[in-house]
Amino acid sequence: MTGDARLAPSPLPPSRGTLYGVGLGPGAPDLITLRAARLIERAAVVAYPTLAGADSFARSIAAELIADNAREIVMDVPMSVERAPAQVAYDQGAASISDALDAGDDVVCLCEGDPFFYGSFMYLFARLSDRYRVEVVPGVTSVTACAARAGMPLAARNERLTVLPGPLPEEELRARIEGAESVVIMKVGRHLPKIRAVIDGLGLTASAVYVERATLPDEVVLPLADAPEKAPYFSMILLTKGADPWL
Amino acid sequence: MTGDARLAPSPLPPSRGTLYGVGLGPGAPDLITLRAARLIERAAVVAYPTLAGADSFARSIAAELIADNAREIVMDVPMSVERAPAQVAYDQGAASISDALDAGDDVVCLCEGDPFFYGSFMYLFARLSDRYRVEVVPGVTSVTACAARAGMPLAARNERLTVLPGPLPEEELRARIEGAESVVIMKVGRHLPKIRAVIDGLGLTASAVYVERATLPDEVVLPLADAPEKAPYFSMILLTKGADPWL
Repeated sequence: MTGDARLAPSPLPPSRGTLYGVGLGPGAPDLITLRAARLIERAAVVAYPTLAGADSFARSIAAELIADNAREIVMDVPMSVERAPAQVAYDQGAASISDALDAGDDVVCLCEGDPFFYGSFMYLFARLSDRYRVEVVPGVTSVTACAARAGMPLAARNERLTVLPGPLPEEELRARIEGAESVVIMKVGRHLPKIRAVIDGLGLTASAVYVERATLPDEVVLPLADAPEKAPYFSMILLTKGADPWL
Repeated sequence: MTGDARLAPSPLPPSRGTLYGVGLGPGAPDLITLRAARLIERAAVVAYPTLAGADSFARSIAAELIADNAREIVMDVPMSVERAPAQVAYDQGAASISDALDAGDDVVCLCEGDPFFYGSFMYLFARLSDRYRVEVVPGVTSVTACAARAGMPLAARNERLTVLPGPLPEEELRARIEGAESVVIMKVGRHLPKIRAVIDGLGLTASAVYVERATLPDEVVLPLADAPEKAPYFSMILLTKGADPWL
């Protein structure tokens, strides 16, 4: 495999398995990378989170690639604003993964988008990377997927790009957007009315695009002014004050 | 293909070809997506830029996938701080691509990383998207690839991420880094001494990592303090003041 030179001479026992944190991209199964696809197809053990017992979005992206006889470690994260219940879910998941790695199996953890870009894989990384060989396979993020689907270049030449989570307080969003060039607002969901008010107040609505479930069959791409009242969690707003695609 | 519903009922003549701007990821050939790989393998015409007659990095990533009998449109961009010579190269490239599209051929334009993330494809997009069907296939960016190779989560929960180009003036870099959480500095190259001085001055060197040619066989990942004196264009600095991978 290309690019593994740095990790090759591992001080860890060779009999232990490797944990792969595998980015699956924004949702369309064919936006999985060749490396991720190969790892998933060969995996004897796959792991992934679910939210409050719902179907796993990550698993749905990779479903066609998972072997019929693969063992699945499911981390069911309860819906809660408290941190403790989620911590328990990741502690238990890490323990199950640890058992598989100790038994010499590799474990492929399925991650929507990219594992290190607002991904829950980093909670497993924090729990396991000091004891096991961990390899992160980067994935296409929803940021560039949304830009592609909206036909909106994100950043050119010496332009800056700012990524802001939608749950930030209104005042902070306003201040950050004011000082920015291209802006991506993630995790819009129930914060849409607040975000809209901020962008309206700054007179920037005409350059903002709303994207929901980018690259999936039920994708929505609309000018922000025409966005629905209610947004799902997997929605995003792109705001390019800067990106000038002309050279 | 998944997620194309929005573009399906095209008002353009069906006899014209489609221009695909295809992200190839950071450099390792197996970080190409399944969709991009399929498009490249089937392409009768591929297009890509070269810099001052040098080999094309984009073409080298995709080399194994390009058909032996594919026609190649090369846009040779001269090395110059003036814009006009590059504009001529993209004008000529757009004209050649336009001829192929008019003849009914699809054209696959090879793009390092992601086409809309500091990519030269946007110069072709600006010249051709009003007359032809253009589809952008997002790719893995060097940002998440560098984070994966460095083992550094980029952003979690409600953290912000700021992407800054290295050529920005020293004062602006300092101000932007000061107000930021996680920071990615792109296009480091000859700006390394300036960027280093800014990060040193802010007392942040200990949390900064230098990454060169991420995912390629000659990749370099080092603490910023140990970075070489001279950096190539494809180098990056990651600075995470915020990303806390614990939950």
